[in-house]
Amino acid sequence: MVSYSAPLRDMRFILEELADLPGVAQLPGCEDATPELVGAILEQAQRFAAGVLAPLNAAGDRQGCRLEDGRVVTPDGWVDAYRRFRQAGWIGLSLPKEFGGQALPKLVSTAVWEMWFSANSAFAMAPLLNVSESLALLLAASPELQATYLHKLVSGEWAGAMNLTEPQAGSDLAAIRTRAQAHADGSYRLFGQKSFISYGEHDLTDNIIHLVLARLPDAPSGVKGISLFVVPKRLVSAAGTLGAQNDVHCIAIEHKLGIHASPTCTMSYGDRGGAIGFLVGELNRGLEYMFIMMNDARFGVGVQGIALGEIAYQHALAYAQQRIQGRDALSGRNGVPIICHPDVKRMLLGMRARIMAPRMLAYAAAGWFDRMHNDRDGAAADKCRRYVDLLMPVVKGWSTELGNEVTDIAIQVHGGMGYIEETGVAQFRRDARIITIYEGTTGIQANDLISRKILREGGQTLRLLLADLRATASALRASGFGASMGEALAADIDCLEQTLDWILANGREHLADVLAGAVPFLHLLGTVCGSWQMGRAALAARSKLDAGADAYYQGIIDLARFWYAHHGVHASALGRTVRHGGAVLTNFDPDALSPAGA
Amino acid sequence: MVSYSAPLRDMRFILEELADLPGVAQLPGCEDATPELVGAILEQAQRFAAGVLAPLNAAGDRQGCRLEDGRVVTPDGWVDAYRRFRQAGWIGLSLPKEFGGQALPKLVSTAVWEMWFSANSAFAMAPLLNVSESLALLLAASPELQATYLHKLVSGEWAGAMNLTEPQAGSDLAAIRTRAQAHADGSYRLFGQKSFISYGEHDLTDNIIHLVLARLPDAPSGVKGISLFVVPKRLVSAAGTLGAQNDVHCIAIEHKLGIHASPTCTMSYGDRGGAIGFLVGELNRGLEYMFIMMNDARFGVGVQGIALGEIAYQHALAYAQQRIQGRDALSGRNGVPIICHPDVKRMLLGMRARIMAPRMLAYAAAGWFDRMHNDRDGAAADKCRRYVDLLMPVVKGWSTELGNEVTDIAIQVHGGMGYIEETGVAQFRRDARIITIYEGTTGIQANDLISRKILREGGQTLRLLLADLRATASALRASGFGASMGEALAADIDCLEQTLDWILANGREHLADVLAGAVPFLHLLGTVCGSWQMGRAALAARSKLDAGADAYYQGIIDLARFWYAHHGVHASALGRTVRHGGAVLTNFDPDALSPAGA
Repeated sequence: MVSYSAPLRDMRFILEELADLPGVAQLPGCEDATPELVGAILEQAQRFAAGVLAPLNAAGDRQGCRLEDGRVVTPDGWVDAYRRFRQAGWIGLSLPKEFGGQALPKLVSTAVWEMWFSANSAFAMAPLLNVSESLALLLAASPELQATYLHKLVSGEWAGAMNLTEPQAGSDLAAIRTRAQAHADGSYRLFGQKSFISYGEHDLTDNIIHLVLARLPDAPSGVKGISLFVVPKRLVSAAGTLGAQNDVHCIAIEHKLGIHASPTCTMSYGDRGGAIGFLVGELNRGLEYMFIMMNDARFGVGVQGIALGEIAYQHALAYAQQRIQGRDALSGRNGVPIICHPDVKRMLLGMRARIMAPRMLAYAAAGWFDRMHNDRDGAAADKCRRYVDLLMPVVKGWSTELGNEVTDIAIQVHGGMGYIEETGVAQFRRDARIITIYEGTTGIQANDLISRKILREGGQTLRLLLADLRATASALRASGFGASMGEALAADIDCLEQTLDWILANGREHLADVLAGAVPFLHLLGTVCGSWQMGRAALAARSKLDAGADAYYQGIIDLARFWYAHHGVHASALGRTVRHGGAVLTNFDPDALSPAGA
Repeated sequence: MVSYSAPLRDMRFILEELADLPGVAQLPGCEDATPELVGAILEQAQRFAAGVLAPLNAAGDRQGCRLEDGRVVTPDGWVDAYRRFRQAGWIGLSLPKEFGGQALPKLVSTAVWEMWFSANSAFAMAPLLNVSESLALLLAASPELQATYLHKLVSGEWAGAMNLTEPQAGSDLAAIRTRAQAHADGSYRLFGQKSFISYGEHDLTDNIIHLVLARLPDAPSGVKGISLFVVPKRLVSAAGTLGAQNDVHCIAIEHKLGIHASPTCTMSYGDRGGAIGFLVGELNRGLEYMFIMMNDARFGVGVQGIALGEIAYQHALAYAQQRIQGRDALSGRNGVPIICHPDVKRMLLGMRARIMAPRMLAYAAAGWFDRMHNDRDGAAADKCRRYVDLLMPVVKGWSTELGNEVTDIAIQVHGGMGYIEETGVAQFRRDARIITIYEGTTGIQANDLISRKILREGGQTLRLLLADLRATASALRASGFGASMGEALAADIDCLEQTLDWILANGREHLADVLAGAVPFLHLLGTVCGSWQMGRAALAARSKLDAGADAYYQGIIDLARFWYAHHGVHASALGRTVRHGGAVLTNFDPDALSPAGA
């Protein structure tokens, strides 16, 4: 079994050359992110990921979780690993110092979280919930609630859990039915059932602080009547000590295709008189708070896609280097490692390209997050906020779709051995299969992209982005070595703009046709952004080579060429599908989908 | 849980309108295939698949097989289902009457086998081995061996098993080490270990007749020194009665990602003095016999890809029709079935298109099989044989890749429920994951396509095929309704021809570049063949509509339009990847694949 080794060289190249870590580190509040500190953090994280988390991954998958008398028991070693994780301070890496965090840029924590997700995705979901929940409380909770909960969430002494979905309310949170009743003391009593709650119950911490979406009896219907509550598993006294068990219970855990070690719980609230909860922010604004947080949560899942691709790639590469099979088609030499076969090499390079392109985009986006929060230049901050808003559905939707593909190819590289569970690579495929679904399916991302991020503002931000893309295309065209990439990128940008124009022209009269192309458009935008970032990478690498740097940078240029020839090349077809495929779909009689019954 | 319902309308349309069942039924030896008989067989098979096999599928996955003292126990119900299957005569459907079969055309049995694979893929692999082994014995075995084994394999009283791979000999059978020693009585003694042997041991039958590839001590090295042997699990007396257990033992079964109910065995030969075996055909021609059979076996796996796609599609469609979630983006109506959301409809139509296109090609190929064996017109038979040879890697490689995609989308349509094992749809994904690997990976198929099927004969057969494709493009262009499809198809054919020319021009000097594009080329050829068949289907449907037929045929035309807009559209990019992506790959320094260590 291959262990995990963080792709530090790639990470550093992207952080420094593409995502402007040096610039981010000069922003107010980000000054701690010196090259020395960032280097030390990445090294430490790599050691923790490889030494503590990765060794538990396969065993956690095999053992899974079990529910015993309402208590969830995590796999062997989980409790200890979690204790070490929180004691090392990893949870607060990019959370405010005020609550015990280290306030490092998101750009830095992004690389670190990628490591956790590569090493052990099922585990990493637990502390990620602490981060998400901390961000929600920072955003909207009263000082009292913050004082009671935030330090312990940031330190990891207590765990977090997000209780959004219900059996009838999955993608559509407007359909939530969980009730909250006001209580005389200002608190609330909650009643209802929540499903698919990751780490809704477990044995890693003494307390679990649930964030729960619920509805007051007199609340408006739909999305505008949903409020957000803190519901601790165990009640907390004014002094901060743990009290009685709240009326919150795990009544079932799911038997899933993957992430077996991450308990997916059905939570019951109020079976025994009502679960005591505390309102976060204002009434009926719960979904709004969730949507503000959504960019962050979706970003995290996008990184998970990259991370699962990376670990699957490492396994496939190691296997291809040592598995002896077949004859070299060129030399005729027998008994060569399979990496010598052109198609195996193609699969590996295809994996690496589909990891690096979304990684470049995600890290660049992390830098935009930092700038939007910290850049004193209002125009710069605003542009970054707009880019984050526009591209978060792409970072989530496109990176996870590619992550799935990469984990799937990893099985293919292994041949029959990939199908054997003990080989280990199938787990990454199974674990990855949820990432295009949770935190909003790819379809939901694509609809968000088309409707909220493009149509609502008439495509303004995407036009801004197109100008940045064109600058890269021009630089490539002028570069000599990259001229053909520059030509291809320029053509793809034209295709993207033409498709944007079509969307804007048809968004009102032919919305069904436009939405029918939402996912192909998401792939188009992702692909062109991938070509953009690969082009930027090639330009940066060329500069490094010209300055005498090592062969790593030639590998980046060659990777970019591969990306253009094998992946970027599909952009124009995607554009045509968006522009011409929608009406076909709209006009298709749904009855013709099931002719078997005819 | 959704049951299975055979897509009889689609099957009949393709059999009759695209694969020329009426013409095949007039071939000598195929006259039994009257419309009435074929209709009755399809109805009976549908009932058996839905009533007997499908209900065991999920339970078989959960229970799996177990190894107890060298005996493999199949899941509950398996023994009974197998007994009913063989008693109904399904195994011999297209095998010779001389040995108890019904000698129906492969075209008919193809539709029937698709049903078995949809209903229960893990089960269907058992009787398929009887068919494959019968074909091998018909091809090469002596009359004595045929007399001893063929009736019982055709009836299913005994089972078959193909023992090809060994730990060091997976894709590369030249590396086989299992030894065979000649014995004074004309038989052989075999020694060695075989791995990944499907149904190598089980409790469905009293005897299992193993076909085993092995090597005599003085045999030439490599592929030209491998012979084929019959090795029965229990020895058979001259009178045909069962004797002692042979020295053949199952020593392990694999824990796999899917097809849990199909035991994948490690078989040990000759632990206790030597397994008694009988030579099939001539010494050192074992691999040659296997290669002749290969087209048939690969065809079967291609059909499995279509079949797993179909059953996954049926589940996804049923779920999308009943799952209420979200708001109609156009009408604003709340609580609509998710099939109303354009992206869900897109996924469903994308599944249907990716099932129908390879089904059309596979059934057409089945007709070619029948003609190549039975057509008295030598030129017609020869053309069909060439088409079968050329396109079998496509039917296998492309159909299974699409089958994987379809089963994956089926999970996506289910959202979070798709990730829960009890929902059932994840099983199809897991079961399907082996089909791009066994019977030769997609990479092996693509290399076979490029090297043996194109380069070796200078592309002659593909040029023949291009002429047939052009005829369809012309008919579409002339049709009025299909003109735009005709234009697209004509352009794709040009792209395919241009790519063929490039392959032929570079196959000698730049073989590595050509092989680097083998899989993209396989997808290109598959995609253009898909467009070809969809175009033929649209033309046939138009004729039916003009003659007053029902809305089913409009659905076929609309499906073809969807195929062209969403799938066919990628052909030109695939061609460019083949022509331009190979050199990039060849020149890529393998060390740059693992920069993490740098």
